[in-house]
Amino acid sequence: MDWKKQVRAALEGHHPTIGRSFVFVLFGLIIFSLLSIGIETMPGLPDWARRFLEIADLIVVAAFTVEYILRILTAPKKLRYIFSFWGFVDLIAILPFYLSIGLDLRSLRALRILRMFRLLKMIRYSGAADRIGASFRMVREELIVFGLTSFLTLYFCAIGIYYFEHEVQPDKFSSVFDSMWWSAVTLTTVGYGDSYPITAGGKIFTVLVLFVALGVIAIPTGLVSSALGRVRNEEKPPKE
Amino acid sequence: MDWKKQVRAALEGHHPTIGRSFVFVLFGLIIFSLLSIGIETMPGLPDWARRFLEIADLIVVAAFTVEYILRILTAPKKLRYIFSFWGFVDLIAILPFYLSIGLDLRSLRALRILRMFRLLKMIRYSGAADRIGASFRMVREELIVFGLTSFLTLYFCAIGIYYFEHEVQPDKFSSVFDSMWWSAVTLTTVGYGDSYPITAGGKIFTVLVLFVALGVIAIPTGLVSSALGRVRNEEKPPKE
Amino acid sequence: MDWKKQVRAALEGHHPTIGRSFVFVLFGLIIFSLLSIGIETMPGLPDWARRFLEIADLIVVAAFTVEYILRILTAPKKLRYIFSFWGFVDLIAILPFYLSIGLDLRSLRALRILRMFRLLKMIRYSGAADRIGASFRMVREELIVFGLTSFLTLYFCAIGIYYFEHEVQPDKFSSVFDSMWWSAVTLTTVGYGDSYPITAGGKIFTVLVLFVALGVIAIPTGLVSSALGRVRNEEKPPKE
Amino acid sequence: MDWKKQVRAALEGHHPTIGRSFVFVLFGLIIFSLLSIGIETMPGLPDWARRFLEIADLIVVAAFTVEYILRILTAPKKLRYIFSFWGFVDLIAILPFYLSIGLDLRSLRALRILRMFRLLKMIRYSGAADRIGASFRMVREELIVFGLTSFLTLYFCAIGIYYFEHEVQPDKFSSVFDSMWWSAVTLTTVGYGDSYPITAGGKIFTVLVLFVALGVIAIPTGLVSSALGRVRNEEKPPKE
Repeated sequence: MDWKKQVRAALEGHHPTIGRSFVFVLFGLIIFSLLSIGIETMPGLPDWARRFLEIADLIVVAAFTVEYILRILTAPKKLRYIFSFWGFVDLIAILPFYLSIGLDLRSLRALRILRMFRLLKMIRYSGAADRIGASFRMVREELIVFGLTSFLTLYFCAIGIYYFEHEVQPDKFSSVFDSMWWSAVTLTTVGYGDSYPITAGGKIFTVLVLFVALGVIAIPTGLVSSALGRVRNEEKPPKE
Repeated sequence: MDWKKQVRAALEGHHPTIGRSFVFVLFGLIIFSLLSIGIETMPGLPDWARRFLEIADLIVVAAFTVEYILRILTAPKKLRYIFSFWGFVDLIAILPFYLSIGLDLRSLRALRILRMFRLLKMIRYSGAADRIGASFRMVREELIVFGLTSFLTLYFCAIGIYYFEHEVQPDKFSSVFDSMWWSAVTLTTVGYGDSYPITAGGKIFTVLVLFVALGVIAIPTGLVSSALGRVRNEEKPPKE
Repeated sequence: MDWKKQVRAALEGHHPTIGRSFVFVLFGLIIFSLLSIGIETMPGLPDWARRFLEIADLIVVAAFTVEYILRILTAPKKLRYIFSFWGFVDLIAILPFYLSIGLDLRSLRALRILRMFRLLKMIRYSGAADRIGASFRMVREELIVFGLTSFLTLYFCAIGIYYFEHEVQPDKFSSVFDSMWWSAVTLTTVGYGDSYPITAGGKIFTVLVLFVALGVIAIPTGLVSSALGRVRNEEKPPKE
Repeated sequence: MDWKKQVRAALEGHHPTIGRSFVFVLFGLIIFSLLSIGIETMPGLPDWARRFLEIADLIVVAAFTVEYILRILTAPKKLRYIFSFWGFVDLIAILPFYLSIGLDLRSLRALRILRMFRLLKMIRYSGAADRIGASFRMVREELIVFGLTSFLTLYFCAIGIYYFEHEVQPDKFSSVFDSMWWSAVTLTTVGYGDSYPITAGGKIFTVLVLFVALGVIAIPTGLVSSALGRVRNEEKPPKE
């Protein structure tokens, strides 16, 4: 077995001697990294803790960079890996750090948020990636159809409520696109209470669309759930 | 093939030479039209953009008018088309424009909202119209029964909460019909927080009906979802 | 056929000559009666309308009274009818009127609310009574078990949140029973926003119970829905 | 039959002569105890009632202590019972009382909340313990997987909203952990309205994650429900 195959086996977790230990280390680094994203936002954090998290992040980025380079070097088709979904996930886990060198604080904030996609790296090493991928492929067509339907429903409701409420609440329903916030919050039944119709027409319109639209919005959600469950059932032999 | 058949085939998207190109043009016009309904409501829109949208709307209405006239002329039974569901949809897509000529601004607003029903035209050209129609026919009877049940449940809850809350919150529960807004917002679990019971009796009544009524309200929504899913499954061969 | 059988047949809607006409009249009276309950609460109702509704209510009560007496007289077992579910429904439709004679306005309000149970009379004449009854009998045992479970869950959450929030929000979480309002509004995901935890402990407790309790609360609701659907499916031959 | 077996049979409710009477007494004590936890929090409770509840609680604790000692003495494997789930439940029902002797009021409050776990004792004597236990074992693996997924989804959304909203609402989105309160309230669609995004970026982020995340969050809830239902169906012969 040449060194490329050995490295790939170690990264995939089925190396004959190292086994899953490499994967466990990377998994641990991801969890630590995700935790530190949260911890560094805590107000009143002492300086030494902040410096410790910064140094730790350096080490995490270094490790992820080595992993990324190894993956490119050992991939049978280099370009195919780089432009694959997981290639982008691996890149986005380290890119924010390299881009942030020599940038002002404001743009840095926008880059930092990208670190949260390291969660996707976690999915890969958890062994659930194949299952989730299979679920999505199974319902991809339906998801596109019903996702579009949901978006159109949101837009339709936003146009309606805009005409009813714009005149009396111009700040909350300032445009159709702005009213889509109301559509989404209402049709998912979250209902924060920051914007709601106050005219009689707007209220009647809301009641009518609520009953029709709840069903439309519920479909994509249910599709993903049931697909995930089905894939899971197929994997293991039935218990009953 | 006479010209009537040719025009109809072009409009339906199965013309031997033109094919679906005619349908794509109309589909594009509808999407542009829906987008412009949203864009024209944006505050601070420059004058040239507003004028551009007005002219574009003229062109869209002209195209839809030609389409409507062609459909009437080429229909085997003219009156039947005019008074069919799609006949009304085609009419309502252009009527607001013609009615608005020579009207004051106030009535114009009421007419403009009708343009949002152009979304229904979109359903026709998306090829999903047959499927949605089949779903609705499949559960029509149930929808009527449970739709009425939902309405009665809303009304019943509104009567109850009115008697508990009217005296202490006369502005929010001013009449039984007014209290139906509370019923709908509560039983769909949106819960904006603009009106809620504050008396002990009203709170106990709310808790009791919530548990009973949630089930009743959930039925029509579930019916449409499951019917849409069933029709979809029948169309394509099973994957598993 | 003696007169008792004839009257009963007319009330049930299968009289050989009168047919369903009697049932239609009663059904119309119930709908009118329910509507007038709503209309009489509208603010700014002119005096003549109010007087018209009062007189109409007299006629409705008279008709329901005649129906009640006829049902008692023609019932094979008089006492069994009087103490049956429908016997109570028929009584409660007229009792508020007779009790209200010579009462002050305050108690009258409490009696008036009872008129809303005329909705139950409507169910009887709609032909859906048997189906709904069958559904409930089918899941009665489950409903009791899960109804109790829901109640205990509400109570359990109310105790927990009381201990976390009472000290900082004594007006909103004044006692465990008072906190049950929060439990019910939260676990049904209505979330009005009139009472919510503000302490860290209360928030963590809320998040934890939300995930566990949503499942428990959802069960009774789902049971009734699925039972109603099942009974409906059994009645009609399958379409597919 | 020696006394150990007799005591155990009495506690389990299948003693030849006493039968279920012992279980009924304990069940009654638990219900009384739970009720008194609620009643003692009512404001304006007279002193005699408060004293009565305190004495009653003494009796309840005494009875539970005797039960706990008897269970230890009669258990075939003493240590195994003490460290079992039900052993902890029995201990936690009495421990708060013994720990509270000689403690100041503040710590007492923290101990008192533990009394609410007496509800778990109730489950044991209701006969539903086996069924609930079987349900949980059936979906344990799924619960862990999807429980973790839910937690990660909450965390992911909290990171995202923190970066969008922290700058404009530093009090409501003070850290990523603080933002998890928003995540939980939003993704369960409770939507109190105490914290919601106000920036355009935060609103768009919310709409996007709502549609994806609702499905993820709904899975654990549905798993418990369906498992409980399945166990129930297995126990009784089918009706249809």
